[in-house]
Amino acid sequence: MKNTIGNSLTVTLFGESHGKAIGAVIDGIASGIAVDEEYIASQLTRRRPKDARSTPRQEKDEFSILSGVFEGHTTGTPICITIPNADTHSSDYGEMQYKMRPSHADFTANCRYNGWQDFRGGGHFSGRITAALVAAGALVLPALNKKGIHINTNILSIAGETTEEKRNEKILSAKADGDSVGGVLETAVTGVPAGVGEPWFDTVEGMISHAVFSIPAVKGIEFGLGFDFADKTGSQANDQMYVEDNTVKCYTNNNGGVIGGITNGMPIVFRAVIKPTPTISKEQKTVDIRNMEDTTLAARGRHDPCIVHRAAVVVESVTALVIADMLGAKYGTDWLAKFE
Amino acid sequence: MKNTIGNSLTVTLFGESHGKAIGAVIDGIASGIAVDEEYIASQLTRRRPKDARSTPRQEKDEFSILSGVFEGHTTGTPICITIPNADTHSSDYGEMQYKMRPSHADFTANCRYNGWQDFRGGGHFSGRITAALVAAGALVLPALNKKGIHINTNILSIAGETTEEKRNEKILSAKADGDSVGGVLETAVTGVPAGVGEPWFDTVEGMISHAVFSIPAVKGIEFGLGFDFADKTGSQANDQMYVEDNTVKCYTNNNGGVIGGITNGMPIVFRAVIKPTPTISKEQKTVDIRNMEDTTLAARGRHDPCIVHRAAVVVESVTALVIADMLGAKYGTDWLAKFE
Amino acid sequence: MKNTIGNSLTVTLFGESHGKAIGAVIDGIASGIAVDEEYIASQLTRRRPKDARSTPRQEKDEFSILSGVFEGHTTGTPICITIPNADTHSSDYGEMQYKMRPSHADFTANCRYNGWQDFRGGGHFSGRITAALVAAGALVLPALNKKGIHINTNILSIAGETTEEKRNEKILSAKADGDSVGGVLETAVTGVPAGVGEPWFDTVEGMISHAVFSIPAVKGIEFGLGFDFADKTGSQANDQMYVEDNTVKCYTNNNGGVIGGITNGMPIVFRAVIKPTPTISKEQKTVDIRNMEDTTLAARGRHDPCIVHRAAVVVESVTALVIADMLGAKYGTDWLAKFE
Amino acid sequence: MKNTIGNSLTVTLFGESHGKAIGAVIDGIASGIAVDEEYIASQLTRRRPKDARSTPRQEKDEFSILSGVFEGHTTGTPICITIPNADTHSSDYGEMQYKMRPSHADFTANCRYNGWQDFRGGGHFSGRITAALVAAGALVLPALNKKGIHINTNILSIAGETTEEKRNEKILSAKADGDSVGGVLETAVTGVPAGVGEPWFDTVEGMISHAVFSIPAVKGIEFGLGFDFADKTGSQANDQMYVEDNTVKCYTNNNGGVIGGITNGMPIVFRAVIKPTPTISKEQKTVDIRNMEDTTLAARGRHDPCIVHRAAVVVESVTALVIADMLGAKYGTDWLAKFE
Repeated sequence: MKNTIGNSLTVTLFGESHGKAIGAVIDGIASGIAVDEEYIASQLTRRRPKDARSTPRQEKDEFSILSGVFEGHTTGTPICITIPNADTHSSDYGEMQYKMRPSHADFTANCRYNGWQDFRGGGHFSGRITAALVAAGALVLPALNKKGIHINTNILSIAGETTEEKRNEKILSAKADGDSVGGVLETAVTGVPAGVGEPWFDTVEGMISHAVFSIPAVKGIEFGLGFDFADKTGSQANDQMYVEDNTVKCYTNNNGGVIGGITNGMPIVFRAVIKPTPTISKEQKTVDIRNMEDTTLAARGRHDPCIVHRAAVVVESVTALVIADMLGAKYGTDWLAKFE
Repeated sequence: MKNTIGNSLTVTLFGESHGKAIGAVIDGIASGIAVDEEYIASQLTRRRPKDARSTPRQEKDEFSILSGVFEGHTTGTPICITIPNADTHSSDYGEMQYKMRPSHADFTANCRYNGWQDFRGGGHFSGRITAALVAAGALVLPALNKKGIHINTNILSIAGETTEEKRNEKILSAKADGDSVGGVLETAVTGVPAGVGEPWFDTVEGMISHAVFSIPAVKGIEFGLGFDFADKTGSQANDQMYVEDNTVKCYTNNNGGVIGGITNGMPIVFRAVIKPTPTISKEQKTVDIRNMEDTTLAARGRHDPCIVHRAAVVVESVTALVIADMLGAKYGTDWLAKFE
Repeated sequence: MKNTIGNSLTVTLFGESHGKAIGAVIDGIASGIAVDEEYIASQLTRRRPKDARSTPRQEKDEFSILSGVFEGHTTGTPICITIPNADTHSSDYGEMQYKMRPSHADFTANCRYNGWQDFRGGGHFSGRITAALVAAGALVLPALNKKGIHINTNILSIAGETTEEKRNEKILSAKADGDSVGGVLETAVTGVPAGVGEPWFDTVEGMISHAVFSIPAVKGIEFGLGFDFADKTGSQANDQMYVEDNTVKCYTNNNGGVIGGITNGMPIVFRAVIKPTPTISKEQKTVDIRNMEDTTLAARGRHDPCIVHRAAVVVESVTALVIADMLGAKYGTDWLAKFE
Repeated sequence: MKNTIGNSLTVTLFGESHGKAIGAVIDGIASGIAVDEEYIASQLTRRRPKDARSTPRQEKDEFSILSGVFEGHTTGTPICITIPNADTHSSDYGEMQYKMRPSHADFTANCRYNGWQDFRGGGHFSGRITAALVAAGALVLPALNKKGIHINTNILSIAGETTEEKRNEKILSAKADGDSVGGVLETAVTGVPAGVGEPWFDTVEGMISHAVFSIPAVKGIEFGLGFDFADKTGSQANDQMYVEDNTVKCYTNNNGGVIGGITNGMPIVFRAVIKPTPTISKEQKTVDIRNMEDTTLAARGRHDPCIVHRAAVVVESVTALVIADMLGAKYGTDWLAKFE
């Protein structure tokens, strides 16, 4: 499957950080959905670096919709969105072609692609590619909203801090040190009906985690109580139930809205951990793959001391695509465009 | 795709807890692999309840290989393994047809299948189905071992305890209370070469998590440092590198062997949390779906006060299937059977 | 994908001619569909050899449904159907392990599976495996019928003859000569609404042909006028249209109900050619793969002088599975079980 | 799956005839393959209308490779190729928005996409989209050639004529009449080793036919003797075998290189029938979907009196993609780039 995800609604990603353009092809989206280019632009703006907490690379993200949209609505055929790369400083990366950044994909890309990868700026592994995911998500999010499905991702912590002021301090302090920090994002999806998902393999947790682990730097995911389940008893952890307005509800949501792989009608809640950005300007021990020798590297180029705040909209977008895919499979091709 | 997982090597699960049989079809396995029925039986024994820590249900797990094996070797065609259900006490479950066990799949199954599911003993959602996953994994594990790939899952903790003695005390104590406990499993995979996995979507983390979340009661997964990355700086967390014997290695393995979605040659390390078994004999608030009324339930029937120790071999088996699938895609159909 | 077909509704085949059992796992079928075991048996009877026109091998085809059916209805989980092999004469095939039957899969199976295949009776390539396809098709056909969708396959010709009497004469005459004959089947599907299918790749023609070419001995397929289009002009061949009862209809059905890959509401009509059975008792030149030497073979064992009449129900079954798959994707998981 | 085909190597098509651009994303191609842009251009030229036998629409087909190619070689990541639309006369199509061209996809597209499709010039159903397939095929053809695999598609007949001169006469005569003609293409693939393909579902015939039926106007496909098998006996039709240079060969190739769904090492040979172009300027009976009334239509706009000669390179390209996909699955991800 490679760079494509989804069954009913699929997304195929392409592009390299310093190539002509990045983009995505979204297929299987229902015909007749209004496409709001301003909303897409606003979502891309949420992802874009804006202040001292992020890389100084400034991309306008002026996207083009090449296909699949006609007179402001989806046609039902594949939508190709491209975003050109403009502000590229490839010369920054000369040394880094051979000196592998620790914990970055430089070395694994070299193994996977036998040395043929576009190494400039992380190439196809760059966080920049997530702009295309955000654009793709922005195609389906308004339609999901109209269906009463809402997705929200919040920053739980950055560098262990929960308040925005202290989080930003930690980011700027790490930046000053030539270092970086990570954090935790929490996502809630409301409005998904009970009964979505499969018991084996295509569980809601499995489908969401498959997609979310694609986001660079995600290293863990947990649903509901997650790892805190380990120290609970069943009687403490079970979500007891009651009936309200002829609907089954739970007193608690320890399972994060998913039981047996299938939604129970409560909000789907999960957390993802984002590791600290691997590219730092502190000197680190690494290898030079030209001559297979030990060396050191203090990364040049523009990079983010923290990507947690920028990743929030990416997690929302990816989640939207998974939810739309699962609901499209359950309710059929045209479902996303049907209202009443 | 539903009850099938994999691309190059696929596994399709079927069966209900109290139906005629459970089983799996494994397809895409190379021809010429020796099939060791004693090993399969020994893996099934590892999963089977054996003492007071588990359900009293005793299944012999006398499996049959219906196809795909000839004269002791795989033929390369689909292997169907069935395991009959023998020790079923369906009468235990009469009340539970309508009274939904909190945190069990009773209610979500009812939503998903519109009330037509086989409710007896959890039906298709039963942990019993994992016996078929274990049998499937046992087909590929010996061949992976011959390739130098080893998979091991250890119990990190049960009910917060790390030593075996205390863990067992907690399990038996929960059982005496009509309650249950959960825990954390850690898996290490050694011997997978660098360069396996994809940058987007079919990352190693995404592929493993997709499969592992199928195992009933898994609610979180993390690779390497996992959620501990959140409080680290890049300079603390990055895996610095060196050359040894013309091979690139890392001083640490904070990334759990996967960077940019792709293996780096270090052991693949992940942890999965198992929630406490939802079926408990303590009385809980729940709903009766016949009349959509509040009620209470103290579960009858045989159930496990803890499944963490039984789940270890299931995680190993599922991981083996994912690894064999990814390597089969990379190296081709016949790879698993090729030695030297 | 190998031995699985379908997206919304999948079928996985397993089994060898002389192994323990053959069978299929059908997944993605809606819950709540009545399962009529007598109808399944009657469809298997249609496929079974019955008189001098077929092989003397007599299999009762006493199938077992191992999973996915509860109290006479589908549960929505995977249905595993097995059919044991009983009347096997493996000793007939000793010589044929090494002497490759011309135009049979003996040699290609040996190449594909590196010599590990179960060679007895054609193994996994045997027409016997189609019994499992027929059983799978029999699960969805009654539900399709209730939706107003009917599938019928007729014999157009056998050995060039169109009347039943002459066709049978040709079959028996070929049998007397130790030879075999082929023919053409025509299938019509009525009741499929307009708008089903995809413009690229998953066209109705592409989906049906992908499945139908799996049936052993099929070597060609054509829709509507098919190869006769080659000599027509557009004005002769185009299906001109009119409105009747507010529905668009065509004066002709030269396109066989599919235009641009998508149904137009007219009957889907296609023809498949079945080659003469390759196993014949006439002596033929072939090779012995033990010593890679030329040799001759006059096949022993029981075989069919013609399979065209037996293949009709197989084509119907396979077509039913494809149609149910495409409609399930379009209208959603539960569609097949919904009636007004 | 929709607009994507393939497993190991996938192609996703996008674009509309009168939109900004058409294109394809090719994923799963090995890294390190030389990309010859002149060859791609030359293949596009083969497809392009060149003389009075084709539409006067003149597109330069100036393609851009947006991703996946670096310093003249594939990187192993997805390759997005776009081809802008330049010479569009959308005003020609005003009337045809509502008056459905008989046997063209106008009506079925309207049903499939609920009226939201881009109707201009056939939109996503236009033969123009095949330019992207040709570009995709041109990426893998030179690498297949280096492996000794060659693909050639010849015109067998147009309007019943086999000699080029008479064929062209028939095309020009049809054009003068405001009519169109069809024909038959024959493709041969040499150099594919024995043992490629699967017995059930992913047969070589099934995989090729699935792809070839995507090409607009293809209505039938047959392998080897194809429909002529119907009148042959087994002893006439079987491909008898012999050994030469320690290799198994056949005296004849009636099976077109595929037996039991798997290659036997002989050339893969198939024929596809192309129906006469449906868009003709002769008046035809049709419907106006605005008011659901009968009407007539004499098509305006630029169209081809015959596309058989232009389709040859499309069939070659699609076949190359299928062959590369099947061999990539069998021999692994990097196979296409490995030479000795």
